[in-house]
Amino acid sequence: MERPDFLNHSAEHLNGNLKGKDILSVWQFDAQTLDHIFSWSLEMAEIAKKGYKADFLSQKILANLFYEPSTRTSSSFTAAMERLGGSVISINEVKYSSVTKGEDLEDTVRTLEQYANVIVLRHPEMGSAAIAAEAVSIPLINAGDGVGEHPTQALLDYVTIRKEQGMLDGLAVTMLGDMKHGRTVHSLARLLSLYQVRLNYVSPEILRMPSTIIQELEAKGVQQSEHESLSEVLSDTDVLYVTRVQKERFEDTAVYESVKGLYVVTPETLRAGKESLTIMHPLPRVGEISKSVDSYTKNAAYFRQMENGLYVRMTLLAGVLGKLPA
Amino acid sequence: MERPDFLNHSAEHLNGNLKGKDILSVWQFDAQTLDHIFSWSLEMAEIAKKGYKADFLSQKILANLFYEPSTRTSSSFTAAMERLGGSVISINEVKYSSVTKGEDLEDTVRTLEQYANVIVLRHPEMGSAAIAAEAVSIPLINAGDGVGEHPTQALLDYVTIRKEQGMLDGLAVTMLGDMKHGRTVHSLARLLSLYQVRLNYVSPEILRMPSTIIQELEAKGVQQSEHESLSEVLSDTDVLYVTRVQKERFEDTAVYESVKGLYVVTPETLRAGKESLTIMHPLPRVGEISKSVDSYTKNAAYFRQMENGLYVRMTLLAGVLGKLPA
Amino acid sequence: MERPDFLNHSAEHLNGNLKGKDILSVWQFDAQTLDHIFSWSLEMAEIAKKGYKADFLSQKILANLFYEPSTRTSSSFTAAMERLGGSVISINEVKYSSVTKGEDLEDTVRTLEQYANVIVLRHPEMGSAAIAAEAVSIPLINAGDGVGEHPTQALLDYVTIRKEQGMLDGLAVTMLGDMKHGRTVHSLARLLSLYQVRLNYVSPEILRMPSTIIQELEAKGVQQSEHESLSEVLSDTDVLYVTRVQKERFEDTAVYESVKGLYVVTPETLRAGKESLTIMHPLPRVGEISKSVDSYTKNAAYFRQMENGLYVRMTLLAGVLGKLPA
Repeated sequence: MERPDFLNHSAEHLNGNLKGKDILSVWQFDAQTLDHIFSWSLEMAEIAKKGYKADFLSQKILANLFYEPSTRTSSSFTAAMERLGGSVISINEVKYSSVTKGEDLEDTVRTLEQYANVIVLRHPEMGSAAIAAEAVSIPLINAGDGVGEHPTQALLDYVTIRKEQGMLDGLAVTMLGDMKHGRTVHSLARLLSLYQVRLNYVSPEILRMPSTIIQELEAKGVQQSEHESLSEVLSDTDVLYVTRVQKERFEDTAVYESVKGLYVVTPETLRAGKESLTIMHPLPRVGEISKSVDSYTKNAAYFRQMENGLYVRMTLLAGVLGKLPA
Repeated sequence: MERPDFLNHSAEHLNGNLKGKDILSVWQFDAQTLDHIFSWSLEMAEIAKKGYKADFLSQKILANLFYEPSTRTSSSFTAAMERLGGSVISINEVKYSSVTKGEDLEDTVRTLEQYANVIVLRHPEMGSAAIAAEAVSIPLINAGDGVGEHPTQALLDYVTIRKEQGMLDGLAVTMLGDMKHGRTVHSLARLLSLYQVRLNYVSPEILRMPSTIIQELEAKGVQQSEHESLSEVLSDTDVLYVTRVQKERFEDTAVYESVKGLYVVTPETLRAGKESLTIMHPLPRVGEISKSVDSYTKNAAYFRQMENGLYVRMTLLAGVLGKLPA
Repeated sequence: MERPDFLNHSAEHLNGNLKGKDILSVWQFDAQTLDHIFSWSLEMAEIAKKGYKADFLSQKILANLFYEPSTRTSSSFTAAMERLGGSVISINEVKYSSVTKGEDLEDTVRTLEQYANVIVLRHPEMGSAAIAAEAVSIPLINAGDGVGEHPTQALLDYVTIRKEQGMLDGLAVTMLGDMKHGRTVHSLARLLSLYQVRLNYVSPEILRMPSTIIQELEAKGVQQSEHESLSEVLSDTDVLYVTRVQKERFEDTAVYESVKGLYVVTPETLRAGKESLTIMHPLPRVGEISKSVDSYTKNAAYFRQMENGLYVRMTLLAGVLGKLPA
């Protein structure tokens, strides 16, 4: 993949070697690097489950710098570091920090660089992760920069699809809900463009996938199609990736009320799908997947998806800190 | 003890074995299990004091999930986990978490289950701990669920009484202050009903012990009596358990002003008590026990009570994680 | 140095031995103790950089109690403890804690004493650290008590000057900006009075160094001079210590606008200085030192200053916990 303009030179192609690198964008990954990450995630699952003393990262410190709240992502990185014997400095309340005294992001990360070996950054502005990475010489991992990227989410989605379905080539992946605002579906679609997948986007008219992304993926030869109703593609779908349709996205609440039912997944919905259909969701969910789905099918994979997030983040932390073989 | 209706089947009787169990309610405890906890708390005190490398819980992670602030309880569980070599994910600011995005408690704990080995939950609603425990397969410890239960507080109170007085049978325990709202005194009274104790409740008329609790304990044959003045029972009291009388509980502040002095303990108050009288308080105190009491008698046990909380929580964490002999 | 009135007897002279002591004030330090701290800070830098398993403080717990937000100081103490194998209980949001229930500082620290081996306290009121230290028997380190003291900042400033310049005797140290409100410059000036330094204070008229401090240092024979413009002393300065001039300190914003440019350091400013001039700042900066200075001179020492803070705090924690040779 080619590097887009807003990324600086910290966002290097990884070519299978994470050591000392920043993880800023899905654009840095190729199929070989993804293979490595998949294999290592399986190893990390063993480490976490067997619970033997892992000290890969003993004496290493992670600075977990969250300018926006995200319990889920922040906890996942904390657990990943702790599972490998490392320590964590959590800065979850940036509004209370020196930032309120007017300090800029670059000075903040340069200060944390004095204390820590790796930085994880969540920030509301697109491009902020690249700016921060440029300011420091230790590795920085982007945990979401506004409408920009959320590469670790895309990686855990990739690992989950591969674990659940065994391979990626040949799959039909249907993304359901808000295609317009979700950095999650944007990052995932880009990552999947490395494989022979067909992508279906099912959304209300006003929440369609941005044409820039559709054109990007078209240029790579990815088969894509857009729909307003899941029933048009469900029977031929292998992976159903559900996201939330937020009421506040609609100017006219009558329109919202008229469409919302189309983007809720229930056991009833699933009866028309393949028995092997994998159901995913980045969580938190707020009704888009009814709770009865959880026990309806063993292919409801969204909590395993969270679990895979732990293993992917263990892999990335160990990798950028130079503790994995290249 | 019998399980009340609001508890689900996660709240099993422990029968001396904590492994894999949830700790939701004092109703789960019998005298044999309490004996185990007492003995292990003494061991844990040795471990914490000698400071040799305890790695009972190395590679184990506690998710400390607090929907309400409680520095004291949260710090105590954190220290307990760390003293045993384990790690902690702290989620102390739930209002900033995905919960604000509308996620429900069950999904939140199911997510944390992917990262952690045990969950400690403080939540403002009665019954929430039982609901959360049902949603996950890892052990969950109730650190207070609204007006419901606070079993670890009752356990540390029990350990403290036994350490200070040597035994429980035969003791007269006087509870002073707000008998109506305090889950602490409710839980403790229930736990003490396993022993041959006499219970005196001293409170303003409007803050009397709920009759449901009095009837429950009566059915078990516990001797109980109610009073408005401490002087009626002090000379025959072995343990004085003080709680706060909050001004906001009174509709008529004149009534509050007229009674508040009766529920403040000073060295003067104590002169009429036994020399061996143990003085306890769940803390924080706000004037109910004057500071001059701290040095007035070596039997002012409220800071030792906090200390015992550490040992009890070490015991519970090691126990539910299967690291104590049955 | 002599102990001022507001300090209690916890603020003992250290005489080279930190074991079991509280660190409350720069008044506790003599040149011999500072020598020890300097040497140990160099050792700690090796430990942190080589990253070999340091377990000086394994099984020790730090309670990091911050009544005011300070990401920088709090992170620094956390990292220091973790680098030495210890654990941390962070209490960064005191407004959410039992303090809101009205508990006083003494009860809070006496509670934390039950869980932890050492307390670090940041509090908005002068003298609070001394009060808290008196209440507990474990060591307490003052991380800033209002307009009182911030001794660990002064120590890291001292270590930085010595590392950058090789010695202290004979140096001209110029402090620039707000001399009136900054506890940082007050503490540092007092600490430097142990050496043969010349001190220049450059500030707007309304932000001059308090005369009490000038008289104190005069009594010790320190050469001091006051200026309104940096150009008067820059060419003869070895260390330039920059602090922020806050707009809100000025009643008349026209006065602020007329002077602010005088207290901003740029490469232009520095051309008139020595080549060996060390530039320091306690951070965060908000424009007082332009970013172009960072790369203009290798003597821009403010990020190294932060780094030294880590090593000084490792030294203090190991020292008060009795893990350094006397």
